[in-house]
Amino acid sequence: MQLGLIGLGRMGGNMRERLRAAGHDVVGFDHNADKSDVANLAELVEKLAAPRVIWTMVPAGQITEDTINELAGLLSEGDIIIDGGNSKFTDDGPRAERLKPKGIHYLDVGVSGGIWGFTNGYALMVGGDEEIVAHCQPIFDALKPAGQFGFAHAGKHGAGHYAKMIHNGIEYGMMQAYGEGYEILLASELVDNVPAVIKSWREGSVVKSWLLDLLDRALDEDPTLANLKGYVEDTGEGRWTVDEAIRLAVPAHVLAASIFTRFESRQADSPAMKAVAALRQQFGGHAVKR
Amino acid sequence: MQLGLIGLGRMGGNMRERLRAAGHDVVGFDHNADKSDVANLAELVEKLAAPRVIWTMVPAGQITEDTINELAGLLSEGDIIIDGGNSKFTDDGPRAERLKPKGIHYLDVGVSGGIWGFTNGYALMVGGDEEIVAHCQPIFDALKPAGQFGFAHAGKHGAGHYAKMIHNGIEYGMMQAYGEGYEILLASELVDNVPAVIKSWREGSVVKSWLLDLLDRALDEDPTLANLKGYVEDTGEGRWTVDEAIRLAVPAHVLAASIFTRFESRQADSPAMKAVAALRQQFGGHAVKR
Amino acid sequence: MQLGLIGLGRMGGNMRERLRAAGHDVVGFDHNADKSDVANLAELVEKLAAPRVIWTMVPAGQITEDTINELAGLLSEGDIIIDGGNSKFTDDGPRAERLKPKGIHYLDVGVSGGIWGFTNGYALMVGGDEEIVAHCQPIFDALKPAGQFGFAHAGKHGAGHYAKMIHNGIEYGMMQAYGEGYEILLASELVDNVPAVIKSWREGSVVKSWLLDLLDRALDEDPTLANLKGYVEDTGEGRWTVDEAIRLAVPAHVLAASIFTRFESRQADSPAMKAVAALRQQFGGHAVKR
Amino acid sequence: MQLGLIGLGRMGGNMRERLRAAGHDVVGFDHNADKSDVANLAELVEKLAAPRVIWTMVPAGQITEDTINELAGLLSEGDIIIDGGNSKFTDDGPRAERLKPKGIHYLDVGVSGGIWGFTNGYALMVGGDEEIVAHCQPIFDALKPAGQFGFAHAGKHGAGHYAKMIHNGIEYGMMQAYGEGYEILLASELVDNVPAVIKSWREGSVVKSWLLDLLDRALDEDPTLANLKGYVEDTGEGRWTVDEAIRLAVPAHVLAASIFTRFESRQADSPAMKAVAALRQQFGGHAVKR
Repeated sequence: MQLGLIGLGRMGGNMRERLRAAGHDVVGFDHNADKSDVANLAELVEKLAAPRVIWTMVPAGQITEDTINELAGLLSEGDIIIDGGNSKFTDDGPRAERLKPKGIHYLDVGVSGGIWGFTNGYALMVGGDEEIVAHCQPIFDALKPAGQFGFAHAGKHGAGHYAKMIHNGIEYGMMQAYGEGYEILLASELVDNVPAVIKSWREGSVVKSWLLDLLDRALDEDPTLANLKGYVEDTGEGRWTVDEAIRLAVPAHVLAASIFTRFESRQADSPAMKAVAALRQQFGGHAVKR
Repeated sequence: MQLGLIGLGRMGGNMRERLRAAGHDVVGFDHNADKSDVANLAELVEKLAAPRVIWTMVPAGQITEDTINELAGLLSEGDIIIDGGNSKFTDDGPRAERLKPKGIHYLDVGVSGGIWGFTNGYALMVGGDEEIVAHCQPIFDALKPAGQFGFAHAGKHGAGHYAKMIHNGIEYGMMQAYGEGYEILLASELVDNVPAVIKSWREGSVVKSWLLDLLDRALDEDPTLANLKGYVEDTGEGRWTVDEAIRLAVPAHVLAASIFTRFESRQADSPAMKAVAALRQQFGGHAVKR
Repeated sequence: MQLGLIGLGRMGGNMRERLRAAGHDVVGFDHNADKSDVANLAELVEKLAAPRVIWTMVPAGQITEDTINELAGLLSEGDIIIDGGNSKFTDDGPRAERLKPKGIHYLDVGVSGGIWGFTNGYALMVGGDEEIVAHCQPIFDALKPAGQFGFAHAGKHGAGHYAKMIHNGIEYGMMQAYGEGYEILLASELVDNVPAVIKSWREGSVVKSWLLDLLDRALDEDPTLANLKGYVEDTGEGRWTVDEAIRLAVPAHVLAASIFTRFESRQADSPAMKAVAALRQQFGGHAVKR
Repeated sequence: MQLGLIGLGRMGGNMRERLRAAGHDVVGFDHNADKSDVANLAELVEKLAAPRVIWTMVPAGQITEDTINELAGLLSEGDIIIDGGNSKFTDDGPRAERLKPKGIHYLDVGVSGGIWGFTNGYALMVGGDEEIVAHCQPIFDALKPAGQFGFAHAGKHGAGHYAKMIHNGIEYGMMQAYGEGYEILLASELVDNVPAVIKSWREGSVVKSWLLDLLDRALDEDPTLANLKGYVEDTGEGRWTVDEAIRLAVPAHVLAASIFTRFESRQADSPAMKAVAALRQQFGGHAVKR
């Protein structure tokens, strides 16, 4: 099957390779001419036979909007745009509505798998109309892992990015759970070999997971994580997940705490804790650090 | 290798079978005569050649203490007692000290795997002296999963139960993370097929894990979990983990929240929230439920 | 000073009385003719001498927007609109911008105090331009408590509602802290007289506060809160506070947890905890409630 | 009334003064001879007429135990020992039991008020037998604030320290709520004058409290808290409160989070967040800080 793919960075570049390895005809575009198969979007569209399927894999936000708007001017009735980037789910419905009058179909796809997706396949969550999803299924089948798992038609426009957002929220929670457990193990007076304990959990335990495998891998490379700082960025999905929990009145203690600890990890000093220190000093004459 | 095994319930019974399948000579004792190979502990000890290795797999607390105390009176210098139950780690050091003057060695083993361990192998975390661990390694090798993972000599007496305790604390956190994400998905207006989304994560995603596989399995059996109540017990390990976090001054937002939500799940009404409702009524004249 | 006041409900009605008691000339409008001094907004505007000051005290959202839009068509250059309702802070800047071309000034005021404000005075937080605030100061002085506290010019348009929002977020956290402590006291085997303990904290303690006074008052009326359900609504401000914490990358463990417990208090059953129960049953064969 | 008072530090010294100002005859002992009225405990006991009342105000733990044990050897049947220090509530019952065979009575008193207690009075929570409490009431009346509040007979032996412990747990939660709200205010683009906002809440608001008064006082002294580090110690009570919540299966999200943020405030780097950073690097190739 023929596919236009826009954005050939770490994710898009690997996806192009995986799709080609599966026998698909991928025409890629990137602003970096060294990676690009065509000079511009117009040439990309020209090279594809109608009905065209074009997958955008560019940074979420304005760049994705601009790319899709430009594409919309170049494409014809019956063509399909798939956004596989990390767009916010609220962008998808309005985008589909904007494309509809031109007869252009739209799918949103949440893509998980990171740098391992090329080898292992990418977990794909798709939002949009059933028949459009069906039309693109060969592409999804090539990107997803072999076997029965790793793909879902999650629901309406936005459902793909929504499912991916929740995936990331859960990811934050799981990572924080491992992190906290790891720190208590490290602090224990009894446990001498924390990396061995992590390794013991990789098979036969209830907490075995791919993330745990990766934690073991990280400890193999650096047994005390001495080369890392406890400084953790966050991407939009974790924040949006908590925003959604609040909008929908869903209790999300763990997911929220997991993002707050990331905020804390990036603070040189905490204004909140300054205020607490000030209060202790005021009422109890407790010593403070200056 | 010869092993005495005390306690042939769900866990112990399966372990006896798995050990025998691996060619070990297991003499089992249980208060249920139908399951037991011997009539009492004295007969168990008599049937084993010195140096004996006896594994207790009985409920943590007084029953385990009583069993080990009785065993201590029957065993000889050089024999080994292994406690594979869910004892609190603080029991192990004193226990080893009590056995030492009699020349009886002691190991504590945290055993994970639940009802799946018979087939998949049990993840084992061991605390105690290196040479005693080495002596018992054939037993551990038969119980653990095949391959390089699923076993660790974690550290000193107590380290095995400690590692298992942390394992359970992390387990609580992971389950809560999945639970919260699942609930937001259910509440979403966009996602039509929540079980399909869970399924999509089983391969290729960052959140893939054995627990996720089990969640998918549960949803296959009951797609809306309509047959379950959101009522969740907790065992000691989750509580002890938070106690340890507090003792060691380790921040554990996620692990603590995960146990508090279990407490909440079991409350018919919340005195704390009654107080909050009372306050709202007092200052704002807000309506309350009676 | 002359003031138009729109919305004569529980809050607005009390405010009219407090302002009149301070000697101000208040013309009130309400859709309930029994409370209203005038028949409609046009008559209200007519009764006031330019430059007019009109305070809206109507439900946040569309009703406030509609009211201000209608007012904008009736007022003249130099007039002032004050929104004292619970509008979201993000409404204020755009509103001020819309009014500016007409020469109409705008202030947003966060008003705290609930049903006690009539007697004790209302804490007021104001956003907008300095000279407009100064012009309205006599009104603020009449509404605020006597003494040096209870009023702030917090900052730009929106700062008044913002400060009030944070006030409410803190309020949620304080109430939850009292609620949790109260519940532990109730559960204790040692403390026989929980209401007496609450009473003991009202003077001389570090936790003394007006909310504590109200908790004591509630316990005087109903010593076990037997007539209340632990069911707690939330208003927008608590949610917006957490949204803001997330937007600004401020850790807010306590404020977020305080709103999540309210969500929990309103759930008949928890989908998240159903998922956790399902997982426990899957891996451990643990009993579940059906 | 006559009272022996042991420990004349910041708290005890002020209490002696407040008691004397109320007309009581206080004989104080301190290891610091400059402060002490007597040379040793024996002389203290000698100076008091039976039945003696002796109040210990020394550091919790071994020093308190030693002091009470020494006193027990010097006192006679019918004498009363009051521990007003920060002992853990679990010490009180056994202590009372040890003293009982000698006919010595025991009360535990939780004392709140910090350095302000001398002027404002101390909030007192008492555990023990009714008639002993009644006998000592004149002392309590002199120490407590004027008026109807600030004193409770909370319950059995230990109930006084228990109530004080919960008081401190709540105190942590309230301080954290203020701290988080303060930090969001600081981060806001709209609020220009955070100290003014705090000041506005001191009267008329729902969040007014003594702690808020102190926050305002701290901001008067140092408007940006520039001279403080966000580094906050914790005393035993906060930890014990969460331990109790866990023991009694009481959800305590806010109280637990408030102590965890203190732990975080004291960490130069977080092992948990190192593990999270390691995981992000492993699965996504995300940049990390070294």
